[in-house]
Amino acid sequence: MHRTHVRVLEDVLDANGTIARANRADFDREGVTVVNLMGSPGAGKTTVLEQVVGSLPGVRVGVLEGDVKGSFDADRIAALHVPVTQINTDPSFGGECHLDANMVRSAVPMLPLAEIDLLVIENVGNLVCPAEFQVGEHARVMVSSVTEGEDKPLKYPLMFRACELVLVNKIDLLPHLDFDLDKFLYHLDAVQPGVTHIELSAKTGEGLDAWQDWLVKAAMRERIPA
Amino acid sequence: MHRTHVRVLEDVLDANGTIARANRADFDREGVTVVNLMGSPGAGKTTVLEQVVGSLPGVRVGVLEGDVKGSFDADRIAALHVPVTQINTDPSFGGECHLDANMVRSAVPMLPLAEIDLLVIENVGNLVCPAEFQVGEHARVMVSSVTEGEDKPLKYPLMFRACELVLVNKIDLLPHLDFDLDKFLYHLDAVQPGVTHIELSAKTGEGLDAWQDWLVKAAMRERIPA
Repeated sequence: MHRTHVRVLEDVLDANGTIARANRADFDREGVTVVNLMGSPGAGKTTVLEQVVGSLPGVRVGVLEGDVKGSFDADRIAALHVPVTQINTDPSFGGECHLDANMVRSAVPMLPLAEIDLLVIENVGNLVCPAEFQVGEHARVMVSSVTEGEDKPLKYPLMFRACELVLVNKIDLLPHLDFDLDKFLYHLDAVQPGVTHIELSAKTGEGLDAWQDWLVKAAMRERIPA
Repeated sequence: MHRTHVRVLEDVLDANGTIARANRADFDREGVTVVNLMGSPGAGKTTVLEQVVGSLPGVRVGVLEGDVKGSFDADRIAALHVPVTQINTDPSFGGECHLDANMVRSAVPMLPLAEIDLLVIENVGNLVCPAEFQVGEHARVMVSSVTEGEDKPLKYPLMFRACELVLVNKIDLLPHLDFDLDKFLYHLDAVQPGVTHIELSAKTGEGLDAWQDWLVKAAMRERIPA
């Protein structure tokens, strides 16, 4: 059973890669840069988006929200007058714990690609499977909250390795936690040497300029790996 | 592709249920009560275990740790001189984001069932798939940290519905968060009316007596649904 399982997974990932390339070709044709935003449930993915998507200088942004159920995050983004599209993995896709390329493909006709420069896809909250399924994105950003503990890069290395940027979020809580930021960064460097990180607090505003700047440069294709 | 996918999932869950029943029969034969402990990465699953497993009056405890990679949590439990067994879902099972009945079955021969009354299985940190895969447990406990936000019961209803007990963890951080506990409990009651919850802080010790008491009664089969 186990070996069959692994083989099925390989086939699934192979098919996913083909559809992801088709998505990426569509995005490139329209000149839209796509960022896949990942992290644990409650890491603050929607909040770090809310802080910047309404005010990126010279960049027109759209958001694609992936959730198992509901449109709570999409409603928060829509309140900022940013175009937002919802995918639910529950009724349509069997309650999946991640977005895959086919789900994103099904949403492409609903995306206003001609009117945006940057599409941020907020993935389902999960540190495992979203890292395994590319969806056609140009870059991956991960939100890791300091409340989650210093050991997370070691426990979920694939997720941390998959990213071009790690947002270390909720740093305003550091005085109240037994969290050693240096230790976290040491673990992060162990699993992905040299990865860019930004220390962020939606509450105090720390790091928001750097995060905004990163997104603007990504939209201009200055930060996108070949 | 989508319909095939759903059908494959149903078959997988059906096979999983058969193996879960075999696991449960083994646990019952040995008189061991099994609790499946679930929650997000960083919710504090290992910490709430550390606080009680070394000192449950009259109950001999064992722990089965499920992680994608590594044995960080198992090492923390072993330091308390509690028997602990590790399952990694990474090399052996293709990087799964949850434990399933077959993984637990593969660990049964390594478990000291004759020497324990209570087995706590710490699942992979994830709010989606662990709720879908029973592993042969008698009860399910979920750890939800107040740092994750009030909306989590609405966004991950299956997980909250699957549990007999919800541990609302890290309540010492409430003064530093925009988290409305009443609102969270209102959402919890909306998705699973009447579920037991304990407000917990490993830092201040609040709620630890109630959590310990719940586990002792579970081990005595006083809290186990038929």
